[in-house]
Amino acid sequence: MNLAKPSVRVAVLGCGTVGSQVVRLLLDHSQDLNARTGARLELVGVAVEEIATAPVPQGLDKALLTEDAIGLAQQADVVVELMGGIEPARSAILAATQAGASVVSANKALLAADGPTLFQAATEAKVDLYYEAAVAAAIPILRAIQESLAGDSVTRVLGIVNGTTNYVLDRMTLEGLPFDEVVDQARQLGYAEADPTADVEGYDAAAKAAILASLAFHSRVSFQDVYHEGITHLTQADIAAAAATGHVIKLLAITERVSGPDGQDRGIVARVHPALISQDHPLASVHGPFNAVFVESEAAGDLMFYGQGAGGKPTASAVVGDIVTAARHKAYGGRGPGESAYLALPVLDVGQAITRYQIRLEVTDRPGVLAQVASVVAQHQVSIEAVHQTARQASDGPVNTADLTVVTHHATEKALSETVVALAQLPVVVAVEGVLRVEGE
Amino acid sequence: MNLAKPSVRVAVLGCGTVGSQVVRLLLDHSQDLNARTGARLELVGVAVEEIATAPVPQGLDKALLTEDAIGLAQQADVVVELMGGIEPARSAILAATQAGASVVSANKALLAADGPTLFQAATEAKVDLYYEAAVAAAIPILRAIQESLAGDSVTRVLGIVNGTTNYVLDRMTLEGLPFDEVVDQARQLGYAEADPTADVEGYDAAAKAAILASLAFHSRVSFQDVYHEGITHLTQADIAAAAATGHVIKLLAITERVSGPDGQDRGIVARVHPALISQDHPLASVHGPFNAVFVESEAAGDLMFYGQGAGGKPTASAVVGDIVTAARHKAYGGRGPGESAYLALPVLDVGQAITRYQIRLEVTDRPGVLAQVASVVAQHQVSIEAVHQTARQASDGPVNTADLTVVTHHATEKALSETVVALAQLPVVVAVEGVLRVEGE
Repeated sequence: MNLAKPSVRVAVLGCGTVGSQVVRLLLDHSQDLNARTGARLELVGVAVEEIATAPVPQGLDKALLTEDAIGLAQQADVVVELMGGIEPARSAILAATQAGASVVSANKALLAADGPTLFQAATEAKVDLYYEAAVAAAIPILRAIQESLAGDSVTRVLGIVNGTTNYVLDRMTLEGLPFDEVVDQARQLGYAEADPTADVEGYDAAAKAAILASLAFHSRVSFQDVYHEGITHLTQADIAAAAATGHVIKLLAITERVSGPDGQDRGIVARVHPALISQDHPLASVHGPFNAVFVESEAAGDLMFYGQGAGGKPTASAVVGDIVTAARHKAYGGRGPGESAYLALPVLDVGQAITRYQIRLEVTDRPGVLAQVASVVAQHQVSIEAVHQTARQASDGPVNTADLTVVTHHATEKALSETVVALAQLPVVVAVEGVLRVEGE
Repeated sequence: MNLAKPSVRVAVLGCGTVGSQVVRLLLDHSQDLNARTGARLELVGVAVEEIATAPVPQGLDKALLTEDAIGLAQQADVVVELMGGIEPARSAILAATQAGASVVSANKALLAADGPTLFQAATEAKVDLYYEAAVAAAIPILRAIQESLAGDSVTRVLGIVNGTTNYVLDRMTLEGLPFDEVVDQARQLGYAEADPTADVEGYDAAAKAAILASLAFHSRVSFQDVYHEGITHLTQADIAAAAATGHVIKLLAITERVSGPDGQDRGIVARVHPALISQDHPLASVHGPFNAVFVESEAAGDLMFYGQGAGGKPTASAVVGDIVTAARHKAYGGRGPGESAYLALPVLDVGQAITRYQIRLEVTDRPGVLAQVASVVAQHQVSIEAVHQTARQASDGPVNTADLTVVTHHATEKALSETVVALAQLPVVVAVEGVLRVEGE
């Protein structure tokens, strides 16, 4: 046989950290990629902001550079959108689908803000829209949820999906350093941006939580639906209190089904916040800037996916994997699973999430305090799992006080947060020192 | 719109632990599965050995049972082979593909023994052959290697792919129990077969290593190509020696590229044996009967996939995931990636594997012994990384002896094993107490 392989025209929009690595893989591994695709991948153009100043990836013919992303997007079979941000990325993707191209994107912000517009455009044009790299970069978690677990029912996803915050919390835990000092080091090592707000306030993780929730529960969940808290308020006292009960603190992206008393799904909760997780949980041993996603499902049980969640090369690996799949479909027919939102579960207010709290109080050190605290907790229909009380040294303050740590059983977020407000108002409570959710049990 | 969904006829061959769970998922989750497939999955028959004695899964119409697996395989769009073993499973799969059906199988033994025959039949019939459940059950490792990493180059795969042996080694490590006692407990808990030979001798892991090697390196690797050693000879002394140097012992399925001095691939090695792995390595914290596969790749870096590697429900989850994909292709066109053996790398003798040894010797306790040992090691072009010597109590034997542990740098398996033979012949070496490879570094 000497059949010529079909050719698939690939356009790359954006040539920064990720784009340049995608171009490198396409050029350096073209023989492998062609064999795996069963088609000849032809790089037809790379869109950059300014040709005059753009660094040219090694081996790339400079004539392939263009400043016209939209125009390029209309001339390819597979368009790879790596520009980031909302516009002009969205317009370029829509131009691509309208011209009949399949799209591969790593743009979590756009997908979490306006995914349904993109999915609808892809569905109408009968083209693929893949975005594996948008969540946890090299870790193939989206394909796993969307395709491998298509025969199963996911009940909960717990993810460490932001490498910056995991690096910061890990260094704080292992080396006892304060938050600000670790963030400075993370900046120097390139693990944190000059302005780390999107990471440390949980925005980045919230975008990924929206994407994970949409896929895991076949519903539409956007960034605005995700409750989020960051890690800027965490101190060494929080970390020490976690360790004292056999836990570590991780910033988790959590999405789960919430059932009513009849066992029927009432909806989904999606939330991002620091949480205590047992030192024995597989997520506890995810160190440094690594990511991991823990999936609980009905038949498969517990699964975990671990790897590098950022960086040019790992992200490019996921992007090129998507390019191969989309290109094979272009050459031989077939389409990926597309949007699946048939369950259309409502996204519930975070108050309806079921969780546990560890509440650390400073209380006046006299008989009857524990009874008052326990009574307030019980009034909110919350059960206590454990209480630890430690007297402080007299020199700590003007009156003798004690540290009281209360760990609750499961209850709604609403009941738990109302409990904390009521405890703060008790005269015997000097201060609420810290409140963290306990997850993964 | 009120378009009738296309119908896809599904036949299940074999209704044991896995088959009955597959039938349960197909029946109980039919609405979900139909929505995800975009087609109506119609269960057209379940083949059993003997209708009279077969337990009937709850909710299954008994009229769907048949003893004619081959006949049933010829009447479906997607045939699910869960009979296990070589025949009649192979004939049923070939009958299915010849009749134009796509095939989903969990049959690692057949795939590792005669995969190319099945792949060729599927290619000629232009149908799918999926087998995610054949390796590590619920963990979607095959799809990850075959599709998600299609844009990358895998360099090494290290897998804990046999739950029985991981359970046994984990209990031996954590509780200090002897091998035989733990195997008995594993039998009672259902983690080991009455005859655990296939697990403890590494045959099961070797079949999975062959499948992983074929996919990771786009070559044909069969069970016969995989070097394997079991865990029956391991003692508490081995485990203690591992712990003393910060390691745990795991039965690993390893497959890797071996390059020549020019950097070009010379071939693949596939091997299964117990190995020391650092307590800091993510595989070290895989406990009990869990499985995990660690993948090292050029662009993505290190990835790990963790989950349940056996059991009816986890295996069924993977099988039904494959059914959904194969059925979507039947309904809407397209095909999975199929066999990719374009690299056709040769499988090298294990002697050409590059590894490290930890060698534990009992030596006579007198000056100059270490020099003699070091000299023998150097004669084989092997470098020593570390040596630990501990005098034994005089009461241990008729002469004063010492324990000498030698950890080598990387060298070929051939040079290392020849080194051990030469050391055993040294008059100052009383006994070679243990030899284990060191991996994951």
